[in-house]
Amino acid sequence: MDTKDIANQLVALCREGRNIEAIETLYADDVISLEVMEPMREVHGREGVLGKAHWWQGAHEVHGASVDGPWPNGDQFIVRFQFDITQKETGKRVQMDEVGLYTVRDGKITEEKFFYAT
Amino acid sequence: MDTKDIANQLVALCREGRNIEAIETLYADDVISLEVMEPMREVHGREGVLGKAHWWQGAHEVHGASVDGPWPNGDQFIVRFQFDITQKETGKRVQMDEVGLYTVRDGKITEEKFFYAT
Repeated sequence: MDTKDIANQLVALCREGRNIEAIETLYADDVISLEVMEPMREVHGREGVLGKAHWWQGAHEVHGASVDGPWPNGDQFIVRFQFDITQKETGKRVQMDEVGLYTVRDGKITEEKFFYAT
Repeated sequence: MDTKDIANQLVALCREGRNIEAIETLYADDVISLEVMEPMREVHGREGVLGKAHWWQGAHEVHGASVDGPWPNGDQFIVRFQFDITQKETGKRVQMDEVGLYTVRDGKITEEKFFYAT
């Protein structure tokens, strides 16, 4: 699969809420995941990224989600995610607006980096 | 200025259609501009980027524009641009949906890379 195929598959899976499956099938073993803040500012490896995704799903109640894109260029592509969620720990309802920048090598996603509207 | 300040200034200027001024004031002398396609796939230097911007403004009639963002992370930020334009050469009216990934070093934008919805 080329970068556009992977981008389209990631968007299609995330639109159906199948984010875990996207990581399992499209991510490289040694993928690097980059956030703005600790404690998950830099996570290495697909297993770590899966752990992060499972944590996120357990920690939030999702009321609505939309996925825009992809916007590809060469071996990278961008996807926008908007979530209407409640943080279970605080009970706080939040509108998240984030963008993911993905890098592909040899048919797998080797890096994801997330950016947040301020 | 830090990356968020530069991101906010770029967005504010572009929302007012002052894209040329944004390049003149926020870009490094040796900025690199990356597109998907030739002939402007890689342009080096602020003068080259200014030339590209002047070409773009001359070649298109802009009916409407919206600028979303910024989404920052560390020394990078992302901005989404949507344009309703007519290509003067062909007379064709087009809806453009593009995302810019910007990199900042020492208080100036040193790289811009554009991604297009397909």
